[in-house]
Amino acid sequence: MWNISGKIAQEGDMVQLVGLRHKSFIVNLKIDAELHTHRGIVKHNNLIGLPYGSKIYSHNGAPFFLVIPSIAEVLLDLKRSTQILYPKDIGFLLINLGIGPGQHVVEAGTGSGGMTTALAFAVGREGKVTTYEQRVEFQNLARKNLARLGLDDSVDFKLRDIADGFDEKNVDAFFLDVQNPYDYIEQVRECLKPGGFFGCLVPTTNQVSRLLIALRMNKFAFIDVVEVLLRYYKPEPERLRPTDRMVAHTGFLVFGRPMISDSELEEPLEGEIELSESEQVDE
Amino acid sequence: MWNISGKIAQEGDMVQLVGLRHKSFIVNLKIDAELHTHRGIVKHNNLIGLPYGSKIYSHNGAPFFLVIPSIAEVLLDLKRSTQILYPKDIGFLLINLGIGPGQHVVEAGTGSGGMTTALAFAVGREGKVTTYEQRVEFQNLARKNLARLGLDDSVDFKLRDIADGFDEKNVDAFFLDVQNPYDYIEQVRECLKPGGFFGCLVPTTNQVSRLLIALRMNKFAFIDVVEVLLRYYKPEPERLRPTDRMVAHTGFLVFGRPMISDSELEEPLEGEIELSESEQVDE
Amino acid sequence: MWNISGKIAQEGDMVQLVGLRHKSFIVNLKIDAELHTHRGIVKHNNLIGLPYGSKIYSHNGAPFFLVIPSIAEVLLDLKRSTQILYPKDIGFLLINLGIGPGQHVVEAGTGSGGMTTALAFAVGREGKVTTYEQRVEFQNLARKNLARLGLDDSVDFKLRDIADGFDEKNVDAFFLDVQNPYDYIEQVRECLKPGGFFGCLVPTTNQVSRLLIALRMNKFAFIDVVEVLLRYYKPEPERLRPTDRMVAHTGFLVFGRPMISDSELEEPLEGEIELSESEQVDE
Amino acid sequence: MWNISGKIAQEGDMVQLVGLRHKSFIVNLKIDAELHTHRGIVKHNNLIGLPYGSKIYSHNGAPFFLVIPSIAEVLLDLKRSTQILYPKDIGFLLINLGIGPGQHVVEAGTGSGGMTTALAFAVGREGKVTTYEQRVEFQNLARKNLARLGLDDSVDFKLRDIADGFDEKNVDAFFLDVQNPYDYIEQVRECLKPGGFFGCLVPTTNQVSRLLIALRMNKFAFIDVVEVLLRYYKPEPERLRPTDRMVAHTGFLVFGRPMISDSELEEPLEGEIELSESEQVDE
Repeated sequence: MWNISGKIAQEGDMVQLVGLRHKSFIVNLKIDAELHTHRGIVKHNNLIGLPYGSKIYSHNGAPFFLVIPSIAEVLLDLKRSTQILYPKDIGFLLINLGIGPGQHVVEAGTGSGGMTTALAFAVGREGKVTTYEQRVEFQNLARKNLARLGLDDSVDFKLRDIADGFDEKNVDAFFLDVQNPYDYIEQVRECLKPGGFFGCLVPTTNQVSRLLIALRMNKFAFIDVVEVLLRYYKPEPERLRPTDRMVAHTGFLVFGRPMISDSELEEPLEGEIELSESEQVDE
Repeated sequence: MWNISGKIAQEGDMVQLVGLRHKSFIVNLKIDAELHTHRGIVKHNNLIGLPYGSKIYSHNGAPFFLVIPSIAEVLLDLKRSTQILYPKDIGFLLINLGIGPGQHVVEAGTGSGGMTTALAFAVGREGKVTTYEQRVEFQNLARKNLARLGLDDSVDFKLRDIADGFDEKNVDAFFLDVQNPYDYIEQVRECLKPGGFFGCLVPTTNQVSRLLIALRMNKFAFIDVVEVLLRYYKPEPERLRPTDRMVAHTGFLVFGRPMISDSELEEPLEGEIELSESEQVDE
Repeated sequence: MWNISGKIAQEGDMVQLVGLRHKSFIVNLKIDAELHTHRGIVKHNNLIGLPYGSKIYSHNGAPFFLVIPSIAEVLLDLKRSTQILYPKDIGFLLINLGIGPGQHVVEAGTGSGGMTTALAFAVGREGKVTTYEQRVEFQNLARKNLARLGLDDSVDFKLRDIADGFDEKNVDAFFLDVQNPYDYIEQVRECLKPGGFFGCLVPTTNQVSRLLIALRMNKFAFIDVVEVLLRYYKPEPERLRPTDRMVAHTGFLVFGRPMISDSELEEPLEGEIELSESEQVDE
Repeated sequence: MWNISGKIAQEGDMVQLVGLRHKSFIVNLKIDAELHTHRGIVKHNNLIGLPYGSKIYSHNGAPFFLVIPSIAEVLLDLKRSTQILYPKDIGFLLINLGIGPGQHVVEAGTGSGGMTTALAFAVGREGKVTTYEQRVEFQNLARKNLARLGLDDSVDFKLRDIADGFDEKNVDAFFLDVQNPYDYIEQVRECLKPGGFFGCLVPTTNQVSRLLIALRMNKFAFIDVVEVLLRYYKPEPERLRPTDRMVAHTGFLVFGRPMISDSELEEPLEGEIELSESEQVDE
């Protein structure tokens, strides 16, 4: 991972330069390199050795702050040839799929590697992400994006038509980001552990409807469909008000968890009547 | 942490039993214990050894699924005496504060430990969370909540009036969750590294205005004020529509990053005019 | 119409009594009648002769304000056996369908008469509303509702299966509120004048999709699909914040205007090149 | 008013020409006049005599539909030098202020006459709108806008600093649209009948807070603060989804109704205990 806890900028660090109106640039510091912006040139040599949080100036006097980018900013900066996945959706996916250090997650498709980045960041060095893609050019782009961030060690890239299924079994969570997710739910079910977490993002209501049918047919339970909306405010203390415009739609998030069907199970448990001293829970 | 990747339920596991209409119970499995619900009794002994994802029945025949809870579900289940912090806000906070494995985060106040739980989960065993609280009964509740989840090892609980400041310096991120956050911004600034991430949640617009003034006075930049809204849908493929009602407000999230002020810095960098072959960035 | 501009409450007036927490009652004043509420009894005789805006008390001391209800409040108070149509949607429908004094509007189905009431109110005594319904019990309920408000004079109630079409031609606007609106678009087209305004409310995305197909097949243009959302605030000046919950969905409003198809028209107009002195409009 | 119910376009009619991507032009038809657009020229003579709903072509072949504009479209087209008032807010204001044919409404300030137009449209020829403005250039612009629409007959324009109060008493409704509405609530109270409807639009939360204080001090009840949000959808039946961006904020609508204070009233009504046969209302 990039040097996320540094205090002083060093060669090799991934840094963010933020100028007026939050216009920002994320670069890897390299001796003798330069950053050329429309507001002038910044020499990397002049950044190396500075404390993070410093205000610096381009050759023609435009001010920039030198900081370490957050994962959210890194995600927005990724080179991509596919639809963007927004931090608002990623943050909600991570917490609802229960992604944390040490877990094993499978993703399809890789795309430009945005969600792969977020997953690799969240599972950490002890965790593992396996990501499937069938177009080699996307896989290459994603590899490059992950490598730049130092996150590729915990990622296993696979080139595959996912109609053929997944190698993994009993994984903790699955994120599916393809145009026709409803066609692969059976394969996803084979890959997830019972009770594992499935998440998907689709842009249209028609896709949601088709996906819901596929999830039901494959005995997923706890199905949720939800949109995440952000409403930003102009940060003026004496004239506080929402911004004039907002992003109104990125996609519908669909969640579910595969369950073991009745037929796969033994007989219903025989419950007993007598109460023992034990935890009481009110419904 | 709880046994998040298990396939078979074992003694000591924290498990979730989910019944009709998503009514759910989170319990730690204990030999000979029982879960008493309004839909009947479930004996822990009958759960131990079952694969996760199984459907089981209470003594009077009510069905339940046996699963491992996600961090989102654990958060909603915490015993609390303070205002709830929703997964939607927590997910967005984590990703915007750049919280990931290995980081050091400071929080004040601890409250019931909801955000402490999420932070400890996200930084993992290599990371560290320091959390301040001045009411001992809240600290005790939070300790108990964290201990039950096996997350207390990476948390340092401190009992303190935060007007006296924080022991830590140069931390990566700070989450402030008190009624009068505007009164402690100077102390927060001393604690964060330059360019570190500050986040706060306040319910009213009046608090936002006061907080914005305090952040400006203390040279915070990249200030954002934003609300996260969730819109759920009834998961009916042939009658897809948003739910009739939704949570309209939990709080305003306020973000900022402390910068090094001009006076603390050397002279503006002398930029040079000549262009070298190096990374070109279009604004 | 009810006595909307009165200053002093009089026998026969439709008045509103509003108690604590905006709990309200709409009644027609009648000598010797009484209003029995859970907060006590109010005698009509004690209201007749009072100025509007007065604060009065029930027999056991509960306070009420005596006011004239607005059309919005009347709509929410209507006796109904069908789905409610909210003032937020009605207000937006009226302005987008261009409904104003003197117009002729057709509606189907009548239902409980909520939209009929709003339309009759808006077109005034010089305008006309024709409303179709095929279930006689709904028509009777709507008639009663409209009569109580004194708005039935400008309404023509028709009992009909609208698959058989509408008697009217060249009307200004049409509001369609039935479960399967997509089945009647051809009939609606016959009723509207070219360029007239069509509006519809449907609760599900599946209905929207089917309606869009029907509108296109019938050469409607200017098609809009939109939801109206209200976000209320707790009116506390020192603790201003949105309410905790809100109505998240009532329905999707769908608008369109039937156009004359190319084949019905003469040849394209021959435009001329030379410019004359005339109004210049920048695109 | 403009010829709102015409079937055939005639000289003097206000018509709307709508081209590709809903780009539209509203003009008054005049013999020998021309409309010059970026998509070519349209001669008025070629429009006069055509049925509404016709598709016509500019001199270089760009298609346009000829229709009668709705009040919503007219409002968006008004020449203005002040902040726009959106149809979504106007529609909700009209229905919540109970505006309908025959009413007397007062407005301040006039601005470009957008709300004046909507009010004059809604009260009709039997109603009356009095509108105050203190900047003569705005009043002139508004007069011109109203005259063009044929709506000026029912409007009384007054040039005045409203700190001096209003001439009218006991009016049904008041719409206040000035930067510092909180400074004029006492004057508004003098103008409204008790129980009359007050509405206001302010863009910032700070203004809302100050306005709420003024309304309480002046004994307004039924205070509501609300935002109206529109969410549009791309009208694609097979790919139905919300538009990518939306208007996130125009203003906060604040409503209230002045009540007669206790001291102005007689003693509390003496309620009696015995129940008579009369309407029973359940709370």
